[in-house]
Amino acid sequence: MKKIIVQKFGGTSVADTEKIKNVAKVVIREKEKGNDVVVVVSAMGHTTDHLVKMAKTLTPNPSSREMDMLLSTGECVSIALLTMAIQALGYDAISFNAMQVGIMTENIHSKARIVDIRTEKLRKNLEEGKIIVVAGFQGVTADGEITTLGRGGSDTSAVALAAALNAERCDIYTDVEGVYTTDPRIVPNASKLDEVSYEEMLELTHAGANVLHPRSVETAKQFGVLMRVRSSFKLEDMGTLIVGVDKMELYRPVAGVAADLSQARIVVCDVPDKPGVAASLFTALANENISVDMIIQSYARKVSNTNDIAFTVDASDLAKTMTVLDKLKNEIGASDVKVDDEIAKVSIVGAGMIDRPGIASTMFETLARLGVNIKMISTSEIKISCLVEKADAQKSLKGLHTVFNLESDIMADVKGDLPDV
Amino acid sequence: MKKIIVQKFGGTSVADTEKIKNVAKVVIREKEKGNDVVVVVSAMGHTTDHLVKMAKTLTPNPSSREMDMLLSTGECVSIALLTMAIQALGYDAISFNAMQVGIMTENIHSKARIVDIRTEKLRKNLEEGKIIVVAGFQGVTADGEITTLGRGGSDTSAVALAAALNAERCDIYTDVEGVYTTDPRIVPNASKLDEVSYEEMLELTHAGANVLHPRSVETAKQFGVLMRVRSSFKLEDMGTLIVGVDKMELYRPVAGVAADLSQARIVVCDVPDKPGVAASLFTALANENISVDMIIQSYARKVSNTNDIAFTVDASDLAKTMTVLDKLKNEIGASDVKVDDEIAKVSIVGAGMIDRPGIASTMFETLARLGVNIKMISTSEIKISCLVEKADAQKSLKGLHTVFNLESDIMADVKGDLPDV
Repeated sequence: MKKIIVQKFGGTSVADTEKIKNVAKVVIREKEKGNDVVVVVSAMGHTTDHLVKMAKTLTPNPSSREMDMLLSTGECVSIALLTMAIQALGYDAISFNAMQVGIMTENIHSKARIVDIRTEKLRKNLEEGKIIVVAGFQGVTADGEITTLGRGGSDTSAVALAAALNAERCDIYTDVEGVYTTDPRIVPNASKLDEVSYEEMLELTHAGANVLHPRSVETAKQFGVLMRVRSSFKLEDMGTLIVGVDKMELYRPVAGVAADLSQARIVVCDVPDKPGVAASLFTALANENISVDMIIQSYARKVSNTNDIAFTVDASDLAKTMTVLDKLKNEIGASDVKVDDEIAKVSIVGAGMIDRPGIASTMFETLARLGVNIKMISTSEIKISCLVEKADAQKSLKGLHTVFNLESDIMADVKGDLPDV
Repeated sequence: MKKIIVQKFGGTSVADTEKIKNVAKVVIREKEKGNDVVVVVSAMGHTTDHLVKMAKTLTPNPSSREMDMLLSTGECVSIALLTMAIQALGYDAISFNAMQVGIMTENIHSKARIVDIRTEKLRKNLEEGKIIVVAGFQGVTADGEITTLGRGGSDTSAVALAAALNAERCDIYTDVEGVYTTDPRIVPNASKLDEVSYEEMLELTHAGANVLHPRSVETAKQFGVLMRVRSSFKLEDMGTLIVGVDKMELYRPVAGVAADLSQARIVVCDVPDKPGVAASLFTALANENISVDMIIQSYARKVSNTNDIAFTVDASDLAKTMTVLDKLKNEIGASDVKVDDEIAKVSIVGAGMIDRPGIASTMFETLARLGVNIKMISTSEIKISCLVEKADAQKSLKGLHTVFNLESDIMADVKGDLPDV
């Protein structure tokens, strides 16, 4: 049986018909290697923005069901055009929307999760030698309702298809050449990683690296789908392979450095130190669908028997958060609520730090040497994040990038051992 | 049980979000009368042209399956936006594409015919008090393939839905105020008809009146669906009601005058007068999907035992027709093929002419008096068409319009008997 490769092309890769012709060539290149190819595409360039704008002129709060009906058209345009472009080059191809494939999701509009993918139609058409082009970002419920998958949706469609079809690999084509040790726009000598683990990738994406949405990486990790992030314009470049940490050598303590400038910090002051206060606070925020990132609760002060609860939210959720806190402030007995949105979260990520002591202290020392004040710290097994002044973000990133030797291509010596693709 | 009204709005009526807001008001106006409302919409304005243009930059001959996938997105955008606009005005509404409704068609792309419409989902949502907005122009096959219905598709969707739902009426909203006795751009004192029969409407549309596609009228006639053509901008105007001829009094011999300037005449000269010649000629044309309109075969000449076959085709099919004839000319033994595209077909239409002699002679005399030379004549029970020089089309139309008393509103005296809407 032939190997199946799933390819995913984002909106910038199919922004106009010239770019679609280029994508058709990339698709055929994979087919010519003797593989079966399933292609997932997003809507063309700014299509989604344009549709959202039209909806907003009709009503400030369009129903999410109708938004899904509206937005799902964008990918259907892309799949038809890409299929035509492939056919024009003399190859057999066929497009399917999510309803036709049977990309089954839960019955939630605008951010549905995939629950099952029917593979019969796909396998039948692959057996007939066809290249299959599938609409990303969309799904269908058991009742025939059209859903969309929310942010990172098309990446998730591609990974889920790869899992359902037991594909050899899921290639995410994008406008960058792979996953970098940090944001090349901030640190010019950032280097591309040849290999990164799911876990590191997850921490990097959560920490602000925008290459992949964490959701697709989580799905890939769950089903063991091999992912590759690569450029649709530089095909000679193999990009970055994302694999299970168990398949990697722990050859480096820190894989990458990331900064997230989109957060705001809130401190709820002098909350009585009694059970249930934190719970009622964070339940109220969760009820409004506000994601909280870092949370720090100070030790209770002996005299007043109160403590401070500090946490960060995405700046776009700040207004909603303040509405919740205004209501809750008296109820939980807080003296004050302070907001700071001139902050940045700087993180170092690496599966290698698990067994290596001293990484955290190196980070804190480096920031101290640079005169950067640390406002909050949070850690996971493979990540350490420090909240700093927004103005200090760039020098923090650069300093950490140097200290952890990310300038040189530290993967160079293992390049020969990478799987052949 | 409530009456069901099906409303159809074309591309110009939903060309932008301001116009969509206007359509939402028209829809709600009908709902407020106590009726259940099912709305059928076309793609916004020039959407289809834009999509076709993109496809053509990829390949001169896109596959019809992928064109259907591409074009069907246009109506899905319209239904979502219109539903949002209705909801914004405080009414419950829901959109469905053809796949969701189950507008079942035969398995032919780009010009499928509807074979069945599932009504369960529609009835259930109507019972819940919802206004239903359905995508016109598209259908789905039993295998889940997306099809489109070809020219006049959205009108046909609306009439077929009205038939399936046993609707009270199918209102076709457009940018004109109804069906006129002739083209008001050519004959300024053309008057609007308050009522016209299916048969007259069919002859008028075939004869070049562009208000409705004949296919939708045929479907309405077949299922006895009452249609009304009316303006979405002048709601006080009741437009034109299209009903069965059996329900009309034969109060006027001629209902309208039409001109078709898009045809070309071809004369195949000196064809041997033997069986099978005409058959092989018109079969060859049919195989190329060329529709032939008027056909005239002269009496065989005694001496040469040959005759001439003259026919008209749409000018857009002329190149294709000539390719067929170039191949066929020697085979059928014709001496020459002559083409004339400076022609116009002028027709008078009226169910009343069935029992009234003298209508044809009045038409011919009128044209003779105006100095108009008649090149070909064809007749049906309720239509007489004359082929004339294109330069004579306007004066022919005006003259016939006057002779048959179409200037005055001849329906005025029966207005009181029209059904109340």
